[in-house]
Amino acid sequence: MSAFDLESYLNTQQQRVEKLLDSRSAEMGTQVPPRLLESMRYSLLAGGKRLRPVLCLAFAEAVLRQSTVSRVVEDCACALEYIHTYSLVHDDLPSMDNDDLRRGRPTNHKVYGEAMAILAGDSLLTDAFALVAGGPEPVRGLLCRELSLAAGSAGMVGGQVLDIAEDRPAHIDYLTRMHRLKTGALIRAACRMGVLAAGGDADALARADTYGDAVGLAFQIADDVLDVTGDASSMGKPVGADAAAGRFTFPAVLGLEQSKQLAARKVADAISAVQTLEPVEGPLAALARYAVERSS
Amino acid sequence: MSAFDLESYLNTQQQRVEKLLDSRSAEMGTQVPPRLLESMRYSLLAGGKRLRPVLCLAFAEAVLRQSTVSRVVEDCACALEYIHTYSLVHDDLPSMDNDDLRRGRPTNHKVYGEAMAILAGDSLLTDAFALVAGGPEPVRGLLCRELSLAAGSAGMVGGQVLDIAEDRPAHIDYLTRMHRLKTGALIRAACRMGVLAAGGDADALARADTYGDAVGLAFQIADDVLDVTGDASSMGKPVGADAAAGRFTFPAVLGLEQSKQLAARKVADAISAVQTLEPVEGPLAALARYAVERSS
Repeated sequence: MSAFDLESYLNTQQQRVEKLLDSRSAEMGTQVPPRLLESMRYSLLAGGKRLRPVLCLAFAEAVLRQSTVSRVVEDCACALEYIHTYSLVHDDLPSMDNDDLRRGRPTNHKVYGEAMAILAGDSLLTDAFALVAGGPEPVRGLLCRELSLAAGSAGMVGGQVLDIAEDRPAHIDYLTRMHRLKTGALIRAACRMGVLAAGGDADALARADTYGDAVGLAFQIADDVLDVTGDASSMGKPVGADAAAGRFTFPAVLGLEQSKQLAARKVADAISAVQTLEPVEGPLAALARYAVERSS
Repeated sequence: MSAFDLESYLNTQQQRVEKLLDSRSAEMGTQVPPRLLESMRYSLLAGGKRLRPVLCLAFAEAVLRQSTVSRVVEDCACALEYIHTYSLVHDDLPSMDNDDLRRGRPTNHKVYGEAMAILAGDSLLTDAFALVAGGPEPVRGLLCRELSLAAGSAGMVGGQVLDIAEDRPAHIDYLTRMHRLKTGALIRAACRMGVLAAGGDADALARADTYGDAVGLAFQIADDVLDVTGDASSMGKPVGADAAAGRFTFPAVLGLEQSKQLAARKVADAISAVQTLEPVEGPLAALARYAVERSS
């Protein structure tokens, strides 16, 4: 175990992200119909782990070797959470997962109606690109490319389509591909965008790529494992829901022990990839361990 | 009236746009789940006037003084139609306008189901930015900014929210603001992006801005007027549907004659703005007239 104080680090970074999301959405919202802005901010500012912005900031800080980052990095961190939030709002819709609750509060469409929830999601998605493209730095075009490829038809949305497909095969290759797209692509983009926005070189980018891919998969396996082994009170949702719903999970396909071993291997791969970026174990190694060691 | 042959010009440009949309969506689709790609292309390749790409190409050609344009211009033209198509797919959804038919064919959700229609719309929206950001040219970041601001919460989506608001006032200012956002912002962006992608200067950009704003509004007024005066067979939809549904239109707020006069003034404003870009009346003047003189 590293001596790095992850809890305090996460606390600091999450608060930083909350403030950024609050101020950026308010700044961009002055010309937005109030009800739309309210609906966007209802979901955007509903808490959560803020994993994607935290990873983006952590990679930028590792490249820069300081905790002060440029506005480009902050804009990317916010944009990643805008995209993640839109995906949750649309996934919760009646025609998708039909969920009434998200993080203990009514889902967006339960509060604002289905039409507004669709439009709030569309706005969060679109405005994410206004954030990333919102300045003169030439790197912003490249960052828009990273974000759009990770989020679009060959990334996150493609993964969601694989997840809702009726004829999906119960095979580890399909399961892995689905999660690489559905959650992995955006987590990987968060790491890559942190490096790119901070002006990192090709070696740092390749390391962020390997790390992001491994952590993204480890995070999803841990989610599935927690549903089997977790504690309902710390999870904030019933345990065993996946199995009860006959969901397609890593434990269901690989078994519980093999799933845990695969997640542990992925974490080791991630930590090994960033050793040159972080010679003394720090946030990147700790965040990789957190992907599987968390209790919720 | 100008001697410019608009019909033949529109034909040529629309065919050019069809080919671009077909090839770009196929190129980007190699890693996309087939059913998702099929659903995206079902709506993308369903025909239509292709007004936004045609305007983008026309402004680029006016700036370049030739009909050969760069890949950046073509990517922008396609991206504008991706955004327009996504907005139609989401607007047709049961919780929005609940339309079963679009251009004489079943709407996306009627064919692919509601979940897939939402995801196809999300993909078209996201992939539009992958198109615009899909190359190394520094201008691509600026183009992403134009597109996201025009399409997002302070643009097209904001206008849609104003349109579905229950408490909207029957006032010309509200109606104008709503259409400036809902359809005007993207039409204006099409003109501006054509100039920017072709390397036009600040003067050309300002002219494209004035033209786009005027043509966008004229186009919408003409839509409302056609619903009162049009011929059902050339419109491809029943005439008088707006009035029957008690819709909030320019003729309803201003009266028919005043609406026609306002549209004519906007067309004159647009043509006057581009006289230095197009010393002999050509595509830009003809497209402005077409906005109000079309029969469907």
